[in-house]
Amino acid sequence: MNRLLFYASLMSFNTKRRIRFFFLSLIAFFMLWGTTAFAQKATWIWYPGDYEIWLSNQMQNRRTERGTFFPVFWKIDNHYPLIDFHKVFDLSAPEEVDIFVEGQYNVKLDGKAFEGSPKTITVPAGKHKINIKVFNQQQVPAIFVKGAHVVSDSSWLVTYEDKEWIDETGKTSDVSTTKWMNAGFWHFDRPDQRPADFKLPTKPVEAVESKQTANSRLVDFGKETFGYMKLHQLKGKGKLAIYYGESREEALDTAYTETFDKIVVDQPSGDYVVSLSKAFRFVNIIADAGVSYEKVSMLYEYADLQDKGSFRCSDEELNKIYEVAKYTFHLSTKEFFIDGIKRDRWIWSGDAYQSYLMNYYLTNDNGTVKRTTLALRGKDPVTSHINTIMDYTLYWFLGVYDYYLYSGDADFVRNNYDRMKSLMSYVLGRRNKDGLLEGLPGDWVFIDWAEGLSKQGAVSFEQLLFARSLETMALVAQLVNEKQDALVYKELAADVKKKLFDIYWNDQKKAIVHSYVNGQPTDHVTRYANMFAIFFDYLTDEQKAGIKDAVLLNNDVPPITTPYMRFYEMEAMCALGEQDYVTREMKAYWGGMLKLGATSFWEEYNPKKSGAEHYAMYGRKYGKSLCHAWGASPLYLLGKYYLGVKPTGAGYSSYIVAPALGGLKWIEGKVPTPAGNIELYCSTNNLKISSPVGRGKLVLKSKKMPSSNDGSFVHKGNNVYEMELEKGKNYDIKYQAL
Amino acid sequence: MNRLLFYASLMSFNTKRRIRFFFLSLIAFFMLWGTTAFAQKATWIWYPGDYEIWLSNQMQNRRTERGTFFPVFWKIDNHYPLIDFHKVFDLSAPEEVDIFVEGQYNVKLDGKAFEGSPKTITVPAGKHKINIKVFNQQQVPAIFVKGAHVVSDSSWLVTYEDKEWIDETGKTSDVSTTKWMNAGFWHFDRPDQRPADFKLPTKPVEAVESKQTANSRLVDFGKETFGYMKLHQLKGKGKLAIYYGESREEALDTAYTETFDKIVVDQPSGDYVVSLSKAFRFVNIIADAGVSYEKVSMLYEYADLQDKGSFRCSDEELNKIYEVAKYTFHLSTKEFFIDGIKRDRWIWSGDAYQSYLMNYYLTNDNGTVKRTTLALRGKDPVTSHINTIMDYTLYWFLGVYDYYLYSGDADFVRNNYDRMKSLMSYVLGRRNKDGLLEGLPGDWVFIDWAEGLSKQGAVSFEQLLFARSLETMALVAQLVNEKQDALVYKELAADVKKKLFDIYWNDQKKAIVHSYVNGQPTDHVTRYANMFAIFFDYLTDEQKAGIKDAVLLNNDVPPITTPYMRFYEMEAMCALGEQDYVTREMKAYWGGMLKLGATSFWEEYNPKKSGAEHYAMYGRKYGKSLCHAWGASPLYLLGKYYLGVKPTGAGYSSYIVAPALGGLKWIEGKVPTPAGNIELYCSTNNLKISSPVGRGKLVLKSKKMPSSNDGSFVHKGNNVYEMELEKGKNYDIKYQAL
Repeated sequence: MNRLLFYASLMSFNTKRRIRFFFLSLIAFFMLWGTTAFAQKATWIWYPGDYEIWLSNQMQNRRTERGTFFPVFWKIDNHYPLIDFHKVFDLSAPEEVDIFVEGQYNVKLDGKAFEGSPKTITVPAGKHKINIKVFNQQQVPAIFVKGAHVVSDSSWLVTYEDKEWIDETGKTSDVSTTKWMNAGFWHFDRPDQRPADFKLPTKPVEAVESKQTANSRLVDFGKETFGYMKLHQLKGKGKLAIYYGESREEALDTAYTETFDKIVVDQPSGDYVVSLSKAFRFVNIIADAGVSYEKVSMLYEYADLQDKGSFRCSDEELNKIYEVAKYTFHLSTKEFFIDGIKRDRWIWSGDAYQSYLMNYYLTNDNGTVKRTTLALRGKDPVTSHINTIMDYTLYWFLGVYDYYLYSGDADFVRNNYDRMKSLMSYVLGRRNKDGLLEGLPGDWVFIDWAEGLSKQGAVSFEQLLFARSLETMALVAQLVNEKQDALVYKELAADVKKKLFDIYWNDQKKAIVHSYVNGQPTDHVTRYANMFAIFFDYLTDEQKAGIKDAVLLNNDVPPITTPYMRFYEMEAMCALGEQDYVTREMKAYWGGMLKLGATSFWEEYNPKKSGAEHYAMYGRKYGKSLCHAWGASPLYLLGKYYLGVKPTGAGYSSYIVAPALGGLKWIEGKVPTPAGNIELYCSTNNLKISSPVGRGKLVLKSKKMPSSNDGSFVHKGNNVYEMELEKGKNYDIKYQAL
Repeated sequence: MNRLLFYASLMSFNTKRRIRFFFLSLIAFFMLWGTTAFAQKATWIWYPGDYEIWLSNQMQNRRTERGTFFPVFWKIDNHYPLIDFHKVFDLSAPEEVDIFVEGQYNVKLDGKAFEGSPKTITVPAGKHKINIKVFNQQQVPAIFVKGAHVVSDSSWLVTYEDKEWIDETGKTSDVSTTKWMNAGFWHFDRPDQRPADFKLPTKPVEAVESKQTANSRLVDFGKETFGYMKLHQLKGKGKLAIYYGESREEALDTAYTETFDKIVVDQPSGDYVVSLSKAFRFVNIIADAGVSYEKVSMLYEYADLQDKGSFRCSDEELNKIYEVAKYTFHLSTKEFFIDGIKRDRWIWSGDAYQSYLMNYYLTNDNGTVKRTTLALRGKDPVTSHINTIMDYTLYWFLGVYDYYLYSGDADFVRNNYDRMKSLMSYVLGRRNKDGLLEGLPGDWVFIDWAEGLSKQGAVSFEQLLFARSLETMALVAQLVNEKQDALVYKELAADVKKKLFDIYWNDQKKAIVHSYVNGQPTDHVTRYANMFAIFFDYLTDEQKAGIKDAVLLNNDVPPITTPYMRFYEMEAMCALGEQDYVTREMKAYWGGMLKLGATSFWEEYNPKKSGAEHYAMYGRKYGKSLCHAWGASPLYLLGKYYLGVKPTGAGYSSYIVAPALGGLKWIEGKVPTPAGNIELYCSTNNLKISSPVGRGKLVLKSKKMPSSNDGSFVHKGNNVYEMELEKGKNYDIKYQAL
């Protein structure tokens, strides 16, 4: 499909460059030819979403707290135990087809069952329908089918109810109403890569330092890490405890360490690997006298996503911030995007939403976004907000649309429309009499971790996300051609947006106020709704300017102390063109953590705290996570607002490049797109860009008319110049930064 | 609870009999004392419905057709993988509590977790809350807790989403909105009786006859049976096939037998038991020359329900019919009530509904009714009719109310109200513009197996079941104190009932016509709606009389050829007081099967067919099931309409006894109630009754005023006499049958 799109897009290529076109066409032809004439690629397939839910259950239930299993507090779903898979093939010659199945199964050719559960069948030449029906209560029903042309892939159709009944004469029912979905898949491309056996890869890592005292050993791995502890040549008889610490203090303070392993040793000498991976930098091992081991190492566990995007600049501290953000992001990416690696290891929609955005500028891995989206959504019926949090339900909608915008993957969005719709109808069912979202009993109105933050009444921040979610529904309804739905959602969105300003906008305060309680807007101002309104582009220029001074740069408005909301605060300032400010803030805030020795970014950082105070949260001495995905936002900010690259059409069919130095001498980097990287170098007087995709619009602020080796600029006024960017060209532009 | 009820009911006992009262009170006191002072009974518990769904998945996926796995074609659901169990205990002294769990788990005392997954905890004296949270993806999360007083039973509360989040200070959320349900349970009363390991019991049974020819052996077990074939001292090398036959013809006709086992033998001498139980009377074993075995026996697999009800009469053929019906019923009762034992082995709502009714007059096992009801309902969202069949969804509602009426188990009904409501809202969402139920694409309108039966338009039969289902919803809504719902359902029921007569009643034909197509009632008359309208009591006496002659006794109306609908036809005639006719019909129809050698009753019986024609169905030579639950209806008819016992208040708090000899010289038998059996003997001039329960009304037809050793009759006119029956008395009544 991608190859076809590529080919199609080539057809509209600038016809002046005929030779190059011919050459590329030839490549495309061979690629296309390859897909039909050579052996197809088979992969394990399942009912879409089911493996993702199953795997997320496995992953989320790995959380422990001081040795105790600590599961989630929301509903987790289960896979459909009985699935029918089918596809129609048209073969020019008969072929042998191997069948591998996770579960009990039957195979039908043109509706007639083979005896037993065949491992190989022969499919005759001509047009034939193959059905495989699988029951598996314990694991997700999955199949791997491999012939020369008959192979399992996402073009197979699946259902959990085929409704194939017969009448008293044996005639089969009309099953035209059965809802068939395209099969789900990942990367299990060999028959022996059974989906249920999947484990993240690991690699051995040595400790940096190890200090032995009487009966304990403190081992330092030099930086925050994640994986399985390994005790080499462990032997003897007695007890051994491993206390994990993200900080030295935590590892040593055994009465308060958040995680530990306790082992009863009774064995001759042998290597021992703990059964559950953990997050730590330090481990403190306390063993009975009769127990000994040679050394300690670990198996680093990781998701193996490749970096595609990059960023470098003239400021080494910022470069360091970018590197630590990258490491934080990778540590927090497992089978899914999780929040933090020590304490939680759960999938949180608000956290994941930020990981998606960072992903688009670093690893651009569609799979992890799709898996996380499906796992978060779970199954119908919807019985509570996602993660029980109202805002987290709303971020979920935004995440689906962003995915479409960055990836261009309309199939995924289309296949998810029903799930979006039923989730939105749950949300619509929880509006108050004013049509606003107000926390009902059992709804967690989260917003942010902030002392004394009011959740009373209808909070403006939630209405903002609600309006955006409804806009998203309207866009997606349009995309899947549900015109009536699109209309309804559009009207609903407009209504909420109107109320947002009618009710919450305070002209005196030049701000959206925090909430609406007992029929009255409060006069309390917080940053949340105001900063989102800016980058949602819901405001007039005048309102934006008002908010900037009255809220964002106003020290009387309670400051934000989590990287989570700093993400959006910085984004709002970037959207206002205040990259210089953001550079300073990044260096102060993220740089502040680095100065305290952080090797990954934290769940919360309040510069006013000191020493081990920084490690406390939730009323626990080491309750804070020192590696939290939401700490990695510089990845996104530097890609989207410094390199300045963002898609405006699905999958970068169109996009904008608006570089901003933010007070730096130069910046350079890559932004991944589905077709490859957009590359950029920008100094105060020179800009180099190349792009493999779509049609871009360069927006450049310059003291003078810029000049380019190719194409020409249009002056838009106010020192803003624009130029069209075509794919495959290398632009070298002279300009003069403001 | 039962004991308390018993005690309470004793308090209202006839105060004249003081000595007996004192004695019984003393017994009741000791029983009550026993429940609190001695060790409580612990049992394995789970989320209600989850184990039932899980187990039904296991059972229903045991169907095979000629060696091929043959699963259901509707959605099957799955258990919630993560469950929180809790209960508050108030202990006078601390106690040790043992904990057994199916799954990964934690244990909390008053919100504080124990380290790890403890197998024993100490609960201090005083009031304490115990939570156990279990994750199990593969099997149903289940716990067994046993202390002196702290024991797991259905008084524990369970949820799949406890919503126990914390704020940034560690404070736990208000979880008052979490929906807690009473735990589900069965009879797993020992820690080692793990629910997931449950298997039906078996016992060895020898063959009756065995005939060896060259390389095959035909073994006859003398009657229809079910279980695992056992080959004694099987040895050698080669292939062996076991062809199962409900008839001799089927076992021998190896190209068409519905089920078989094929074994590759390569072993020294040893007993071999097949892995999957099967239904058969005959087995035909064909083995390679190199394979031998000494003899063949079987392990009979059964549900182990005890007979409580009974029936005997002066007619030996009817007694034989009753015995074969009993055997048919037991064979068709496994973990759940299934339809037939050879081919299907699935749970079908329409079939199960009849099994429920038979059960109330024979085994009166609440567990199998509840399990079957839960398994059929599955989980939300409802995506199709139960078993995909419109009528089967509607029978399900009727079954819940009958269960309440016969068992008095209000808890079960209360706990199921939400499931009833969401299923009904699915049904209501499928009405046509006239507010009637008409098959939409994907809906199977079944009614009965009958050649050429029209399913076009809105069929009257479905509206009848629809009206009754809505009445049921109104009654249950009332029971659970949902007054507004009750009102809505009552109005809906009245509306459908009105339409039923406005549209379908044909005064000329004196019948409800079959259907309403293209805005016009057809003039086609079938028996279905007419016979249901009689025992639903929807008709005037005049209408009833009209239907009796114009439909039920009219040979021009297509006859019914399945015991399934014969059930209701006979019930309608019984409700009209035509037991004499029904006796003749039973002897002709069920007796007809016996004359053909039936050892269990069939799925379909058409006296016009002959020889092996009887075995064919669904276009297959042996497609018919020769042991089908719906064939056992004499159990119900003889109990309800001959012995004449039926509850009018929940759990026989009130009931009617209206014996009818149906032309027989005498009848006698027992009808089970929650408190024991109502026993009855009736000849043409003598009636003996005793009852352990409620307050009964005896309705007796007699040529003269009957006389009783206790109580007195009131003449209601038309030779009908009534007398109140009190529990615990032995009535001996002289009368003169009409």
